[in-house]
Amino acid sequence: MEKILILGAGRSSNSLINYLFDHAEERDWQITVADYALQYAEQIVKDAKRGQAVAIDITNDQERQQLISEHQIIVSMLPAKFHPIVAADCLKLEKHLFTASYVSPDMKALNDRAKEKGLLFLNECGLDPGIDHMSAMKVIDHIREDKGLEIRAFESFTGGLLAPDPDDDNPWQYGFTWNPRNVVLAGQGTVKFIQEGKYKYIPYHKLFKRTEMIHIPGHGYFEGYANRDSLMYLDVYNLRGIKTLYRGTLRRPGYSKAWDIFVQLGATDDTYQMESVEGMTHREFINSFLSYNPKDSVELKLAHYLGLELEGPEMHKLQWLGLFDDEPVGLMKGTPAQVLEHILKKKWTISPEKKDQIVMWHLFDYVEDGVTKRIRSAMVATGENAKETAMSKTVGLPLGIAIRLFSEGKIEARGVHVPITPEFYKPILEELDQLGFQFIEEEVVLED
Amino acid sequence: MEKILILGAGRSSNSLINYLFDHAEERDWQITVADYALQYAEQIVKDAKRGQAVAIDITNDQERQQLISEHQIIVSMLPAKFHPIVAADCLKLEKHLFTASYVSPDMKALNDRAKEKGLLFLNECGLDPGIDHMSAMKVIDHIREDKGLEIRAFESFTGGLLAPDPDDDNPWQYGFTWNPRNVVLAGQGTVKFIQEGKYKYIPYHKLFKRTEMIHIPGHGYFEGYANRDSLMYLDVYNLRGIKTLYRGTLRRPGYSKAWDIFVQLGATDDTYQMESVEGMTHREFINSFLSYNPKDSVELKLAHYLGLELEGPEMHKLQWLGLFDDEPVGLMKGTPAQVLEHILKKKWTISPEKKDQIVMWHLFDYVEDGVTKRIRSAMVATGENAKETAMSKTVGLPLGIAIRLFSEGKIEARGVHVPITPEFYKPILEELDQLGFQFIEEEVVLED
Repeated sequence: MEKILILGAGRSSNSLINYLFDHAEERDWQITVADYALQYAEQIVKDAKRGQAVAIDITNDQERQQLISEHQIIVSMLPAKFHPIVAADCLKLEKHLFTASYVSPDMKALNDRAKEKGLLFLNECGLDPGIDHMSAMKVIDHIREDKGLEIRAFESFTGGLLAPDPDDDNPWQYGFTWNPRNVVLAGQGTVKFIQEGKYKYIPYHKLFKRTEMIHIPGHGYFEGYANRDSLMYLDVYNLRGIKTLYRGTLRRPGYSKAWDIFVQLGATDDTYQMESVEGMTHREFINSFLSYNPKDSVELKLAHYLGLELEGPEMHKLQWLGLFDDEPVGLMKGTPAQVLEHILKKKWTISPEKKDQIVMWHLFDYVEDGVTKRIRSAMVATGENAKETAMSKTVGLPLGIAIRLFSEGKIEARGVHVPITPEFYKPILEELDQLGFQFIEEEVVLED
Repeated sequence: MEKILILGAGRSSNSLINYLFDHAEERDWQITVADYALQYAEQIVKDAKRGQAVAIDITNDQERQQLISEHQIIVSMLPAKFHPIVAADCLKLEKHLFTASYVSPDMKALNDRAKEKGLLFLNECGLDPGIDHMSAMKVIDHIREDKGLEIRAFESFTGGLLAPDPDDDNPWQYGFTWNPRNVVLAGQGTVKFIQEGKYKYIPYHKLFKRTEMIHIPGHGYFEGYANRDSLMYLDVYNLRGIKTLYRGTLRRPGYSKAWDIFVQLGATDDTYQMESVEGMTHREFINSFLSYNPKDSVELKLAHYLGLELEGPEMHKLQWLGLFDDEPVGLMKGTPAQVLEHILKKKWTISPEKKDQIVMWHLFDYVEDGVTKRIRSAMVATGENAKETAMSKTVGLPLGIAIRLFSEGKIEARGVHVPITPEFYKPILEELDQLGFQFIEEEVVLED
C-alpha cells in the first residue's frame, strides 16, 4: 500500500483528487486530504473508501512533519509561499514531492540533496506551468531531435477564459474563472521578450496596447498580450540563439483595449491605500483618477482623457460593469487594485452553470531545406460548470497522471524537476489526449 | 568657543561652509569639515584660520563618535541613509544636529528624548524642503493668525533649472544642475493631491501629460508637474480641511511633453537589468522599446508609436540629445534608467560658466468678506557659475543662518523640528532677503 498526502483542498485540487481516487483501488493507494478547514477536506473526500480528511495547521512544524512522515508521496496544492517548508520536510523525512507551482530558487537549491536521497520533487506540472511545457517540448524535441533542425521562433499563449455563450450579454466575454486578484494585477512589471534577434521591452502602461491577433481554426480570434518574462525560457527550454521568443496571455478580442482604461487611470495600482474608501461610490472611484472639472460628466472626462468614443465599445464595457454608477463600493479601505477587484466581482463572479474555457496556442518556426516552416499547436478545453472547470482539470490531471506514472515505477528522474523530458511529457500528453485534452498540430510553409 | 562639525563636503555643502566661515570670527567658532575623501574637505576649508579638514569613515562607530564628541553642533550633509546613526550619536553624546533632509520616521522617533536632553535636531532646513516651508508658512500664518481666515487652496512649485541663455541651442533649456539620477527617476510612484475637496491620483505614466502652465511676472512661463505626495503637507502645515493642495516641480515649457517620451517607452525604468548593454548604441537603446519592423526607421516607429510629429519639437529634443545616433552608450551593464542617465550626461552635463536658476512659486487662496483672494509668492535665484550655484546657496544658506541664530541663543525650540514656526522662518527669510533671495508677494482678487 502507498500513502499519498494532499496538502490543500482548494478549488484547484478537485480534479486532481478525483483522479487519484479513481485510481486508488488499482494502485492500492490510501489518500489523505489535509486542509486548514476540515470541512473543505471532508467535502472533497466525501465517503471515499480509500480517503480520509484531516485538519492541519501548516505553520505548526510538529503537526505538519508528523503528517508528512506517515505518507510516501506528498502533493502540495498550498499557496507557493509554503512550498519551501514542505520541501524541507520532504527532504528530511525522505518523501517524494509533487506541485503545480513554479520552481523557486529555494526549491532549485534542493536538487542535489533530493537526488542523493533518491527523491523526486516534481514541480510546474499543472496547466501553465505544466501542459504548456509538455506540449511545447514535444514539438521542440521533434524539430531538434527527429529532424536535427534549429528552432527559429517560439511563441506560446494561454488563456483562462469563459466558454462562448451567445445568451450572455457580458461584452467583455470574460469572468473570474480563477483568482480575481491575479486578473487585476496581471501584466504588472516589465515585459521582456526577443523579436528577430532583438531584446524588446514593454512597460506595463503600454502592454495592453501592444496585442497580437491570433486565429485558432474552429475557435475564432483571440487577443494576446505578452507575459512578464519570456527570457527565462531561453534556459528552461534550452533555446539560446533563438530569433523570436514570446510568451503571452489570451483574451477575447476587445478585452485589452477596455482593460487598458484601468491601467491608464492607475486603477490597478496595488502600492498605496486610497483615501476615503468608506462610502466611496464606483463613480467616485473612477473620478479620483480624472482631473477636476465640474462642467463635464465623469464619462465625458474619461473619454476625453483617454481618447475614447463616448458611445464606443470600451465605454460600453465599463458601463456594463457599473463603473459609472452611484453605488457604494462596499469596502472600508483598500488600494486601487483592491477597490477595482471588489467592483469587478459584482459582475464578473460566474454563476454555477457557467462554463470556463482554457485555450493554449503555440507556434514554432524552423528552416528545412531553405524553406521556413511553421508548426501550430492548439488546445481548447471547456469546463462542465463553475465547479467542474477546465481550469481545475487542466491543472490537476497532469499532476495526477504524473503521480500515477511515478507510483507505477515509470519515472526514473530524481531531484528537482519540471516535466520537460519525454519520460514525463509523452505518457502525460497521451493520457490527457484520451481524457479529451487534445493538441491539434498543423504545419504550414511560410512565404517570404 | 563653540565647535561645529560638518559631516560631508560635497558640492551642496559649499555655500553652507563659506557662510559659517564668514561668521566664525564674530561667533568664536572652530569649524571641522569631515569627509570620506580628505581632499574634498581640504579643498573647501583651504587655509581658513578657524577651520580644519579631517578624513572620516562614517561607518566606523568609534571614529565617528570620537569626532562628534569633540564638537557641540553637528551638521550632517551626508546622504540621508546616514542620518539615523549620526542622530543616535548626537542623542547619546548630547549634541545638537542640523540637516537639510526630510525627517524620517527614525528621526521623528527621537523627538521626546532629544527634547528631554535639551537638544535641537533641526531638519528640512535647505531649499526644498526648507525655504519652501518657511516662505509658505509665513503666508499661511499671515492669513490664519493675522486675518483669522482659512486657507482654501495651497499650491507650491519649485524647480532647479538652467538660467535662460539665448546663446544656448539646448532645446530642453535644461541641464544637470543637481543629482542626474534623481532627474531621471523624478515622479516615479503615484502622485496624490487634493483638488476642490476631492482626492486625486495620477500614475507615473500620465504625470508628464497632466502639467499646469504657470506664469511668473518678469520670468515668463513655466510648466509644473505634480510631486509624489502632496497629502503629507496636510499635517506638516496643519491644513486638514483645505479644498486644494498640490505641490509640484517646475520645468521650462515643452520639457514635460518631450520627457514623457522616455516615460512612455519605459526608458526610465530602474527595476531590471537590460540585456546586452555592452556595445549597445543610443539608437539601439531606443529601438529596444519599439516593436520590430525592419521597413521603418527608429524615428518613424517612435513617432508613430507615441503619436508625435516626425519633425516636431519633441523629436527635435531627442535628436539634440543624440538618442538616434549610432554612438555606443559606453556602459557594461545597467537598468534602462542607468543607460538613459549615461546618455543624457553627454549633453546635459553643464559647462563651468553655466548659471543655474532656482524658481519657487506659491499660491494661497482664501475668502475674505465673501471675496476669494489669492496671494502669489515667487522667488527666482540665479547662480554665478557651475560651482557657485543658486542650488548650493539656497540649500546651504538657510542651514547656516539657522546655526548662527541657534548659536546666538535666538532659537528656543528643542527636540526634532522643521523650520515652520516664526522663530525659524522670520529671521531666516529676512536674512535670505538681504542676501538677495527675495520672495515677491502679490495679492489678487479672483473672479467667479
